[in-house]
Amino acid sequence: MVRKSAAIAEPDGQQQSGSESKAARTRTRILDAAAFVLSRKGYGGTRLSDVAEQAGLQAPAIYYHFPSREDLIEEVMWAGIASMREHLTAVLDSLPPGTPPLDRIDAAAEAHLRHELEISDYTTAAIRNAGQVPERIRARQVAEENEYGDLWRKLITDAQNEGLLRPELDPRVARMLVLGALNWAAEWWNPRRGSLETVVRTAQSMIRNGLSPAASEAEADTPKPKRRRRAAP
Amino acid sequence: MVRKSAAIAEPDGQQQSGSESKAARTRTRILDAAAFVLSRKGYGGTRLSDVAEQAGLQAPAIYYHFPSREDLIEEVMWAGIASMREHLTAVLDSLPPGTPPLDRIDAAAEAHLRHELEISDYTTAAIRNAGQVPERIRARQVAEENEYGDLWRKLITDAQNEGLLRPELDPRVARMLVLGALNWAAEWWNPRRGSLETVVRTAQSMIRNGLSPAASEAEADTPKPKRRRRAAP
Repeated sequence: MVRKSAAIAEPDGQQQSGSESKAARTRTRILDAAAFVLSRKGYGGTRLSDVAEQAGLQAPAIYYHFPSREDLIEEVMWAGIASMREHLTAVLDSLPPGTPPLDRIDAAAEAHLRHELEISDYTTAAIRNAGQVPERIRARQVAEENEYGDLWRKLITDAQNEGLLRPELDPRVARMLVLGALNWAAEWWNPRRGSLETVVRTAQSMIRNGLSPAASEAEADTPKPKRRRRAAP
Repeated sequence: MVRKSAAIAEPDGQQQSGSESKAARTRTRILDAAAFVLSRKGYGGTRLSDVAEQAGLQAPAIYYHFPSREDLIEEVMWAGIASMREHLTAVLDSLPPGTPPLDRIDAAAEAHLRHELEISDYTTAAIRNAGQVPERIRARQVAEENEYGDLWRKLITDAQNEGLLRPELDPRVARMLVLGALNWAAEWWNPRRGSLETVVRTAQSMIRNGLSPAASEAEADTPKPKRRRRAAP
């Protein structure tokens, strides 16, 4: 999936062959290395020499693929959100037609957490550095974040339209609190201290019940499509 | 309160007079400036020259008060969490004896959000850079974070002991998701796009109901101590 996020960052979707393909692989290796360093050292602390070392290259080789440090970082920041959006879109599209709104939100929470915690240094890099990179680097990422936010906006509006959202909630604030809870997991989750499954299950229950007074009833009434969820005792 | 967090960072609590007091004020100004820069530029991007400019000093003057850049940053990171813990402790201590567990959690959520969003660059600096500063700088902050986490651990354990926590939740994961939702507000909240009051009210409802199946009943049954909360329609 890291490879996949880098692939997204390819400016054209053309078939590649021979030496082009080798160049693309090197480019991917540089992006992967940059995501690794950026997620750990932050924007200000990411040096091209560290990226090169992580990628197993000489630093000047990076300039063959990216005109500047900032271009490289811009690409990583953007690809982190783009791959998250692509992943969530695919998960939502795979749900059976007519899946109830709260079940769609469950699936989205799981998709976000798994992508963030299991799959992608890119996403962690983008989350951790969102507040620190200069505006000019943020532009494409912000546009992508807005598109990602739109997916969640729709999930919550759909719940609201079916009378499932607690009336005292501000829908935008509710959405941002949910995303914050999910994003911040990158800061504290440690596979040695508990399973990802436990994180997913606890997050799903809290989000569902936090958003909706009908969460438990819906859970009891609706036959589960496809994915199993452990029933509340 | 920014001043107050810096005051916490004073190694001794002695009364100060004359020139000592002027030195303490300059030290506070440097810490405030460092918190401002660190919260915006991140660990790797925080340069002493920027801190000096923000404080209205010459860069070498900083070395009169802090042996190194890292000592200064370490102090800011620590003070951010320390002032948050002091604030939450004071708020919880001010609640009437016998305040029910879910109402204490409400008060804690409000205290966290207001301190983070209204009061302190220190807290934002600490939140944003938690994943980026080197371990040697993190040590005192981590200890302080653990103490802050203990306050929340107790809040949630108290709710659990009274049978108020949803049984399917993992208490540690639930605590970290709540803190994540609150911490991340530093990344998205903008006073021009909605009031802090709305954020607080939405967060309280989601946390209360997310944690507890008894949240609504408790709200209806318990006479409100001191603070008013808008009733759910």
